Amino acid sequence: MSFHLTKNSTLFTPSNYNLLSITLNSTSKYTNSTINRITKRKLNTSNLLFKNGNTFNPNKISKSFFSASTVHKDINNNNGPKVKPLEKIDHTILELVRLNNNFNPNIHKVVPFYLDTVMLGVIPENVFQQLKKYNKTFSKNEKPFSIFAHKVTFSEYVNTFEKRGKAINDLLTHWRDNNTFSCLKGWRDELYPVFDGNHEIAFNIERSGIALFGLRAFGCHINGYVEDPETHKLKMWIAQRSFNKQTFPGKLDNIVAGGVSFPYSPTETAIKECLEEASMPQEISKQVVPCGAVTYISVEKRGISSDSQYVFDLKLPPSFKPKPNDNEVEGFHLMEFDEIIERLKKNEFKSNSGIVIIDFMIRHGILTHSMEVNYLDILSNIHRPIPFPGPNFIKMKNKK
Amino acid sequence: MSFHLTKNSTLFTPSNYNLLSITLNSTSKYTNSTINRITKRKLNTSNLLFKNGNTFNPNKISKSFFSASTVHKDINNNNGPKVKPLEKIDHTILELVRLNNNFNPNIHKVVPFYLDTVMLGVIPENVFQQLKKYNKTFSKNEKPFSIFAHKVTFSEYVNTFEKRGKAINDLLTHWRDNNTFSCLKGWRDELYPVFDGNHEIAFNIERSGIALFGLRAFGCHINGYVEDPETHKLKMWIAQRSFNKQTFPGKLDNIVAGGVSFPYSPTETAIKECLEEASMPQEISKQVVPCGAVTYISVEKRGISSDSQYVFDLKLPPSFKPKPNDNEVEGFHLMEFDEIIERLKKNEFKSNSGIVIIDFMIRHGILTHSMEVNYLDILSNIHRPIPFPGPNFIKMKNKK
Repeated sequence: MSFHLTKNSTLFTPSNYNLLSITLNSTSKYTNSTINRITKRKLNTSNLLFKNGNTFNPNKISKSFFSASTVHKDINNNNGPKVKPLEKIDHTILELVRLNNNFNPNIHKVVPFYLDTVMLGVIPENVFQQLKKYNKTFSKNEKPFSIFAHKVTFSEYVNTFEKRGKAINDLLTHWRDNNTFSCLKGWRDELYPVFDGNHEIAFNIERSGIALFGLRAFGCHINGYVEDPETHKLKMWIAQRSFNKQTFPGKLDNIVAGGVSFPYSPTETAIKECLEEASMPQEISKQVVPCGAVTYISVEKRGISSDSQYVFDLKLPPSFKPKPNDNEVEGFHLMEFDEIIERLKKNEFKSNSGIVIIDFMIRHGILTHSMEVNYLDILSNIHRPIPFPGPNFIKMKNKK
Repeated sequence: MSFHLTKNSTLFTPSNYNLLSITLNSTSKYTNSTINRITKRKLNTSNLLFKNGNTFNPNKISKSFFSASTVHKDINNNNGPKVKPLEKIDHTILELVRLNNNFNPNIHKVVPFYLDTVMLGVIPENVFQQLKKYNKTFSKNEKPFSIFAHKVTFSEYVNTFEKRGKAINDLLTHWRDNNTFSCLKGWRDELYPVFDGNHEIAFNIERSGIALFGLRAFGCHINGYVEDPETHKLKMWIAQRSFNKQTFPGKLDNIVAGGVSFPYSPTETAIKECLEEASMPQEISKQVVPCGAVTYISVEKRGISSDSQYVFDLKLPPSFKPKPNDNEVEGFHLMEFDEIIERLKKNEFKSNSGIVIIDFMIRHGILTHSMEVNYLDILSNIHRPIPFPGPNFIKMKNKK
């Protein structure tokens, strides 16, 4: 059986990305490696970028468009953050969304990571090679992992919460000490829980290593906005990340965002981070409204981020001015949405924060179907199904 | 290569529906028919129901929970619509969402319908059999369709907008006159455009036949809500559909909804339908705010609905009372969200309208992650990618 397909067909247009995944899958099935084949079959939730794309190549995008030397620490002034694009670029909103949701099982080779029969994440090929090397340093009965060509699990004796956590921690510590993966240089001493199929915590893992296994991570982002009392026009408070930050230095960001770690719920995390990141008193922050979530699978230098970001809207009084409370933020700027869209298209935002703002603009009628031909594709791309188990916040709350 | 999978594994939990699709795909590949195999490969955008499900079987759901004899025409009274559930049911929100988005390439046999190299829709197996029968009644050079085991296209000579529309119209008229498909009894004399890969109209098709080919349809739904000026609590105006309506008689519905047909944009359609369905003056209806869209692929008695419903929020003045303007609506009821959730779970809503209200509740912080363990899965299920081409409203607007 074969399919009649040509490269220039509209199967390659944005609205057909999922179809393309299957198409490439069926044609390349017998030519690619085992690893890749497993990936394609198992992780076919892809909203993918174009392999043979005639419109867009993510590898051609420069990594950063900020020149640190041109930035002034103009906290809360009216001139906006001083950033100098290194080259002219003009992304479409759909391209930005796909840059952030760029995991493509037809391009990125991964091996699934199982707990018993439950897939918890996926291991990029380079990490898989290092894992095999590490596992070989143990004698037969002491190997912490069972490694097959098409999957990785814990060894049979690694069968408790504590033992799994220790096996993972020993591995990451070894890699950190040997400078195997640069993401572990940002070791945070912050544990993220990994959930099994019953929403119970299977083990904890150091936050900086989570993307090495493509495990699920959960975060929250707050859209801090202000409504003009007369015109009802909305503006949004935008943070600029510190240039000293380990991840995405200098990029524009939501007013507040943070990882959700046990035992905090997304809402508790949101309120906590409002104080820590923007000096926001609780009488304001407790008015955050949960308005959905964005989900995506993103391939980055540090690995694969299978992320769910809970989204909150927070209407701020016009008199409130956020202030940095730690060294994570250079400053805050109140921006009109025209400016935000312009800066988004220049890729000046941390990518997932940009996506949260795109979601906000769609929900509030700022970015509409009459402005944006890819409206429906954008919505699908920011709500990608994540095929790994997650927490049950209701059960967690009752346990506390 | 084989995968270690068991029926009771958490691969079958809600968060893994896409994975399940692939799993079943790989194990059942050599046992199913060609038709089914094509479907699985080509349409793997599934957010599916469980084939071997241990939790939920859509076939067990009764078709209607309304007993017409118990309904009073109590338009705009305060007691809510009188509907008597025929049996006790209590769906979860995720089940409702999946009932509406229930196309599953592992269960539903379809053949793709192409225009040149562009897939426009999918034809259910029973329709495919009738199409073959119809095509055989023509002599070799006059057959309107080219039919293969794995795809259907127009014949080479059917190569213009007019010829394609005629071929489809002749076919549907033949089926209507022969009572082949009951959906055609509801012939509307309303044409829907079908778009090619360049967003141009490839042909028009009678609205009542669109699901026979799984072609894309576009609609708009308006959430008409009222905010209590003191408590800021929201209520929503809910319509009850006429018992004489061809589709979903007696079901609860959004205040206003309608199909988007050329040359109207979603916003123009929304405003037009507000007058037609709820006697709403333009000074109110023109304040509709576009707030996104829900997309899904739904298998129904009439065929396969590959739908995109543009969603609008409309804050109504507390003094405004919608009134039926035609015979489509029994009456309108202002409901608290507690009641709406209760009635949703009893499956009293037209399914896609229920989904639009679920989306509203998520966007407005009424249904939150701290109430709903399947929050993220719900969001992915209501934003399913639709792998067929659609219109470009911006280009259409400029052409008018």
